[in-house]
Amino acid sequence: MNFKEELQAKTEQAEETLKQYLPEEKGYQKTVLSAMNYSVLAGGKRLRPILMKETYEMFGGSGRVVEPFMVAIEMIHNYSLVHDDLPCMDNDEYRRGRKTTHVVYGEGMAVLAGDALLNYAFETAALAFELPEVQEDVSLLKAVGKAMGILAVKAGVYGMIGGQTADVEAEEFPPEKVTEDLLLFIHEHKTAALIQNAMMIGAVLAGASPEETAKIEKIAYNIGIAFQIQDDILDVTSTLEVLGKPVGSDEKNHKVTYVTLNGLKKSEEEVKRLSEEAMKELGSFGKRNLFLEKLVEDLITREK
Amino acid sequence: MNFKEELQAKTEQAEETLKQYLPEEKGYQKTVLSAMNYSVLAGGKRLRPILMKETYEMFGGSGRVVEPFMVAIEMIHNYSLVHDDLPCMDNDEYRRGRKTTHVVYGEGMAVLAGDALLNYAFETAALAFELPEVQEDVSLLKAVGKAMGILAVKAGVYGMIGGQTADVEAEEFPPEKVTEDLLLFIHEHKTAALIQNAMMIGAVLAGASPEETAKIEKIAYNIGIAFQIQDDILDVTSTLEVLGKPVGSDEKNHKVTYVTLNGLKKSEEEVKRLSEEAMKELGSFGKRNLFLEKLVEDLITREK
Repeated sequence: MNFKEELQAKTEQAEETLKQYLPEEKGYQKTVLSAMNYSVLAGGKRLRPILMKETYEMFGGSGRVVEPFMVAIEMIHNYSLVHDDLPCMDNDEYRRGRKTTHVVYGEGMAVLAGDALLNYAFETAALAFELPEVQEDVSLLKAVGKAMGILAVKAGVYGMIGGQTADVEAEEFPPEKVTEDLLLFIHEHKTAALIQNAMMIGAVLAGASPEETAKIEKIAYNIGIAFQIQDDILDVTSTLEVLGKPVGSDEKNHKVTYVTLNGLKKSEEEVKRLSEEAMKELGSFGKRNLFLEKLVEDLITREK
Repeated sequence: MNFKEELQAKTEQAEETLKQYLPEEKGYQKTVLSAMNYSVLAGGKRLRPILMKETYEMFGGSGRVVEPFMVAIEMIHNYSLVHDDLPCMDNDEYRRGRKTTHVVYGEGMAVLAGDALLNYAFETAALAFELPEVQEDVSLLKAVGKAMGILAVKAGVYGMIGGQTADVEAEEFPPEKVTEDLLLFIHEHKTAALIQNAMMIGAVLAGASPEETAKIEKIAYNIGIAFQIQDDILDVTSTLEVLGKPVGSDEKNHKVTYVTLNGLKKSEEEVKRLSEEAMKELGSFGKRNLFLEKLVEDLITREK
């Protein structure tokens, strides 16, 4: 299998795992269950669950304990999309070519479906405690406790929600108030935090040491920031055909980005630097995962 | 101390515990942190944390492990109020005499603040894993894992959110579609589930057996349903002066309640039956907690 085929196979595996944990659509609360499934099954790259599992395997993990957490991180990602799309937020009517949750189920139900997905993420992750492999192994039990903490912190006000808050506010700022420091805060929390979340949980569940987990946190930071700057670069350089949106839409919207602040050249250099550092670190553990390395490279250097 | 003074003292203790875990309002995400604190510190009876701690003590618990969970359940209660008050839900501009979160911080920020509180509940609860008393005691470690599961399940689609979904939909139903079965589903999930959540976690963290925990679940069910029917009775019988809202507002709103379905007499009998059963069961454990018994009695037989 080449990389593309392997990625395809792993995406399908992640999708299968996800489906095993989705709620059945029945009972008096059926509508919210349908809305949850509608939003989660809209497709998507399942990137975070894959990053989690690959990191887990890199550190020698081979159990089922990672599965509830793979599902949980994907649910957190999806709840954030449902709430971001709300009329009082970005007011988006379409996502991945389908009507957004609030358009199909109404605004109140979309608020509830987002809440339900966030809550279900922790409900699903908590199932890990009941697995026999966890009940019988005190270090794994402690690792699951630690993973719960990471899941929550990196998704919350010191993670994704923190970045989302700063981003919502920055949109109303005059351009001179959007500093590089603020932009990096937003990228770190809004984008990198869920990548850190996924990869750190993978590491911790496989028994990685605190030092190794800290290294993974830094690698995932680099990946997230590089990914986001590359996004801003593509907005300027890519053609409508490749990217599917008008070229330079950020500039037209007077949006301050890393590229408008630092120029294309410095931005490209920064992506290169972050990427090389991440790749070097990722190759420096006792065991390597070449698929993971290729996936990370692919993410950062993508051209669409 | 009489009961009222004791309740007052315990409410202040719960308030103090809560304040220790609230986020500091600083950083680029300061607005969402302020909105969280604004909503949590609006007052309130802190009933769920008190029920949790009293149940914990009834089963002999005396550690600090219950504290993060007391905070977590209060945050879940508060996030549900913030989202319920949104314009696309109940559209309430005042709560406890203060402007609601979305009126003060805007609708988008209120969505984020609700999400943040729900997330922070699990973030706070997960701190329990790191307590030395938990790290050193495998049964307590397992109990904390179990408590995380209860926290999530009873707040989610098979708990509070499930009840909220059914309630939102029932409001649009013609009266004949609102059956007793549906009403009891709503009361069980929207009201009783968080009381079960609080009391079951208290029991589990103190080392209660599965049988004892199941008994507590049933007791909390009775308390929740009796509380809710009593609420409907008061709507009919109470005067404006005592209750602070027009008498019979449910009837004016054509709202189907347990009382409109079954009449006052049968409703009062049912409150009495549920209440007596709960009190009998609550007094049947090896150890008793007389304050808890009085609190439960007070909740159910209140006249406002």
